[in-house]
Amino acid sequence: MTYDNENIFAKILRGEIPSHKVYEDNDTFALMDIMPRSPGHVLVIPKAPVRNMLDADPASLAATISTVQHMARAVKQAFAADGVTVQQANEKAGGQEVFHLHFHVLPRYDKVRMDRPGQMGDMEEIARNAARIRAVLEG
Amino acid sequence: MTYDNENIFAKILRGEIPSHKVYEDNDTFALMDIMPRSPGHVLVIPKAPVRNMLDADPASLAATISTVQHMARAVKQAFAADGVTVQQANEKAGGQEVFHLHFHVLPRYDKVRMDRPGQMGDMEEIARNAARIRAVLEG
Repeated sequence: MTYDNENIFAKILRGEIPSHKVYEDNDTFALMDIMPRSPGHVLVIPKAPVRNMLDADPASLAATISTVQHMARAVKQAFAADGVTVQQANEKAGGQEVFHLHFHVLPRYDKVRMDRPGQMGDMEEIARNAARIRAVLEG
Repeated sequence: MTYDNENIFAKILRGEIPSHKVYEDNDTFALMDIMPRSPGHVLVIPKAPVRNMLDADPASLAATISTVQHMARAVKQAFAADGVTVQQANEKAGGQEVFHLHFHVLPRYDKVRMDRPGQMGDMEEIARNAARIRAVLEG
């Protein structure tokens, strides 16, 4: 499968459209999901043009999972979460909608289900949640 | 959080209870989930005593995600799947039931939903699916 340079994460990485960034390093980027299934829902992506886990080069995949761990710890602290769920979808049948590798990092709470997918979030709340995560990362 | 040496994956790694192994290397182990949410549902675990992603050491996490990728490609080929879903749960609120780090690798098909969690699978079918994955890995 090929990589589409016009996917939304490619545009975000090129700075063509804005995002609620929470973290960035040489190889990876983390941003808020604007259709959060749990408050504080973060996405972690590699900067390299990788379609998904099936075609990922080892270096991009290793860097990405390291940032996933960093974000999992950060969101757990930022929101005093009880747990964290990580999800990653490959191809449409696997649940993938944007064809640039991304891991979902979802803060979770005892006895609270994830929200339904596909619901646009409140942008002010998302901006506040991004600030809480950045504060933890900068603390 | 501490690591419980009596969790089921620790027992499997010590050889105290059997499993449908599909892959093993120095640092990781992959086996069939006996409550599959999709035929060919595989679990990937590190051999090190790691509770989940929150406490994982970098080497164990990197080795585990590399094997996840290897298994994702293998199950896609073995079952001619259209996609693959990867899930990883941290703490009970995050969906974790066995407290040894594990990634779920689920072959997926267009327009086919995942089965409900917690349903015991058909052991003969699971054994056949394990053999199909091993055949791909050995091919």
